[in-house]
Amino acid sequence: MTVKLFAMYTKPADEAAFLAHYHETHLPLVMKVPGLEKAVVNRIEKNLMGGEAPYFLIAELHFPDQATFDAAMASPENRAAGKDVMSFAKGLVTMLVASEG
Amino acid sequence: MTVKLFAMYTKPADEAAFLAHYHETHLPLVMKVPGLEKAVVNRIEKNLMGGEAPYFLIAELHFPDQATFDAAMASPENRAAGKDVMSFAKGLVTMLVASEG
Repeated sequence: MTVKLFAMYTKPADEAAFLAHYHETHLPLVMKVPGLEKAVVNRIEKNLMGGEAPYFLIAELHFPDQATFDAAMASPENRAAGKDVMSFAKGLVTMLVASEG
Repeated sequence: MTVKLFAMYTKPADEAAFLAHYHETHLPLVMKVPGLEKAVVNRIEKNLMGGEAPYFLIAELHFPDQATFDAAMASPENRAAGKDVMSFAKGLVTMLVASEG
């Protein structure tokens, strides 16, 4: 069963700088995490409930199973990606672990 | 480009009743929405930031493009699904429109 990490980012002060760092620096680090099956980046366009959307960007990191996910989280590559998150998105990010189904 | 609707539910008072209604009544209504490519239901297991997770369940409804999404939202099937949401998850749900990439 797919295990997913949802990384949910609230709106940054400088959207362009955030997106540049996200795509040019952060995502390449994430892609090195062992066992990662797929990364999907979703830009939030609209809150159907009205008002401002609570998130600006939601990334999904897909792993094939719990053991692969656990090993991925414990890897040096994941520590590097996590350290990078704290350099550009501290206070903006929420990370949730989910299982599909 | 895939257009996604994220339906994000906070924790209900009665989890078992919520999940029964969700899977037995709500999801079958959602699956009737024209143009829907895929529905993915994610159960949130853990907040990696510590503390309680802000959501209990996150569903993703995938549509192949904006025109299909717009037609889906305007359909009677979607109105029926929306009416059903309000019957079991009013005050629990946030719906965000996103584009991948």
